[in-house]
Amino acid sequence: MSALQSIHIPKLDEETGVLVQKYVDSLTKPPGSLGRLEELVIELAKMTGHAFPEVSPPGIIVFAADHGITAEGVSAFPQEVTYQMVRNFLNGGAAINVFSKAIRARLNIVDIGVAVDMDDENLINKKVRYATANFYEENAMSPSEAIQAIEVGYEQAQKLIDDGIKCLILGEMGIGNTTTSSAILAAVSGKNIESLVGTGTGIEDEKIQFKQQVIKRALEKRKPSNTDPIDLLSKIGGLEIAGMAGAMLAAASNRIPILVDGFIAATAGLVAQMISSQVTDYMIMGHRSVEPGHAIVMDLLGKKPILDLGMRLGEGSGAAVAFPILQSAVVMLKEMATFETAQISNRD
Amino acid sequence: MSALQSIHIPKLDEETGVLVQKYVDSLTKPPGSLGRLEELVIELAKMTGHAFPEVSPPGIIVFAADHGITAEGVSAFPQEVTYQMVRNFLNGGAAINVFSKAIRARLNIVDIGVAVDMDDENLINKKVRYATANFYEENAMSPSEAIQAIEVGYEQAQKLIDDGIKCLILGEMGIGNTTTSSAILAAVSGKNIESLVGTGTGIEDEKIQFKQQVIKRALEKRKPSNTDPIDLLSKIGGLEIAGMAGAMLAAASNRIPILVDGFIAATAGLVAQMISSQVTDYMIMGHRSVEPGHAIVMDLLGKKPILDLGMRLGEGSGAAVAFPILQSAVVMLKEMATFETAQISNRD
Repeated sequence: MSALQSIHIPKLDEETGVLVQKYVDSLTKPPGSLGRLEELVIELAKMTGHAFPEVSPPGIIVFAADHGITAEGVSAFPQEVTYQMVRNFLNGGAAINVFSKAIRARLNIVDIGVAVDMDDENLINKKVRYATANFYEENAMSPSEAIQAIEVGYEQAQKLIDDGIKCLILGEMGIGNTTTSSAILAAVSGKNIESLVGTGTGIEDEKIQFKQQVIKRALEKRKPSNTDPIDLLSKIGGLEIAGMAGAMLAAASNRIPILVDGFIAATAGLVAQMISSQVTDYMIMGHRSVEPGHAIVMDLLGKKPILDLGMRLGEGSGAAVAFPILQSAVVMLKEMATFETAQISNRD
Repeated sequence: MSALQSIHIPKLDEETGVLVQKYVDSLTKPPGSLGRLEELVIELAKMTGHAFPEVSPPGIIVFAADHGITAEGVSAFPQEVTYQMVRNFLNGGAAINVFSKAIRARLNIVDIGVAVDMDDENLINKKVRYATANFYEENAMSPSEAIQAIEVGYEQAQKLIDDGIKCLILGEMGIGNTTTSSAILAAVSGKNIESLVGTGTGIEDEKIQFKQQVIKRALEKRKPSNTDPIDLLSKIGGLEIAGMAGAMLAAASNRIPILVDGFIAATAGLVAQMISSQVTDYMIMGHRSVEPGHAIVMDLLGKKPILDLGMRLGEGSGAAVAFPILQSAVVMLKEMATFETAQISNRD
């Protein structure tokens, strides 16, 4: 695994952080009065190593893949919706298209494991396999497929970074992937399934209990490692989660801030952390999803969200909606006057 | 009071709200999965009466005025900071300038009661009086001055609306105005001072207790009405709060959504509600300020904030930072495909 063996994630630039903190306190506002915006711009400065960090243009990669576990009837939508939604992404009609356009992002759609062949000149075809296998019955994929999926993610992010993006947002489309993510989180956290599993994109209470039982039994059968990310991914899946983890590693290696979306993306963050723990230094949580597992992953990552708007769509949508808050933090630093230049009396 | 006597605030357009709710559910996402964005666009549709509401361009008016109560030593900054900050607004260096530019807002700065004369071609001079009087010692202003300040606000908002703004944000600058707002809130809510008064723009614990005592004693002396807004404003102030209240009434009369900033702006909303109760139908709370009184005002208005980022600056800054969330809600409705047009299978 060429790219992964040579991963080097630089330490945060604390020195620049201290400088920016001082400068933020000299801007024409009471110290601390812009709250989280001040914290965010200092984090961005430490990540990028720039005293006046930039986040535009942002890049968004949506990884699409199917999950064999849907055969157990755990999802509200049929599996075919994955490729139908990919077509929707390519036609510009999905939520992520609309929010991506609003923030002037580069948007790439990557087929990393959709169950059927899709032919479209705007789709990046990096299919590792046709869906994962049903992890209730067998391992989701081979270890080499898991590594390949991580590498696809790494390379796709590296390309966008080479093209000049200043912030990376990762999205996913894969019917059944809250089930896969919940299983990963249960394996890693050791928490009981009941506390992690919610409605996904919209199943009823009875089906939630069924989903919980499927995950519980599958974990008993698969016995995934809670420390070896390749073992975990190969036993549970999913291909898009591996791809997102790889992309996060690429971003962190290049000092590019990662604006993390909801539950699935944060779970990919957990997997990335198992590969290289410093990757979390480059993560900012875009929003709090209503999916109950999300709060647990954020706690494990030691992060708090920017937005809390009751969203649970995925696709990178929550992060894209949060992006203007990062922009506000950046322009605050770059464009505000200081007490001195504006000749304003400071507090007595 | 010409403008105020003829105020008519139209009822929300519930019929359009129902239509938009149905349409939102037909968009290519699980129903409800975009959470607050879905609620917001339905609120905007009801306010504006348009099935595809717009919020751009937004307009921002910052009302600046001084407060005689600063003579009691209740603020962290000296009174001269009010006019120094107004100069900063006119030079483009304050937080509200920067955030206003980011959302492409029309920004007007109105002197409605700064303590000194200010001469600048970009400043709208509508000074009602040179600061309020110290309400610890005497009434802040006359009833006719309070009415005049409300009318100034109404007229300034009406002008921006006539020029085509689709959403109104109100900001303020006035050293001492958290003291004034806390006194208004205590008078209206009947809650004890200790639960309402916080740090303002940054005073220490000892000074907070002093500020609480000043307000308590002043209210005992002034005995402002909790039902008559003119009595309340004339006894306590402030001129910018009256102006913001008037501007909100103009927006609601014209079916223009009001994106409310923090504690001072929400308190102006409470005053506007005393003048014409339906004005609250047109209010959306931009953010939750750390000022403890803010949560109480929002409860009284029956509203919940969009953002919770620990901000406490004023100037309209929190609302301006929240504005892109409204834009996201608007583009979601306008640009997303439906299940039918995208030929996507709906839930089973």
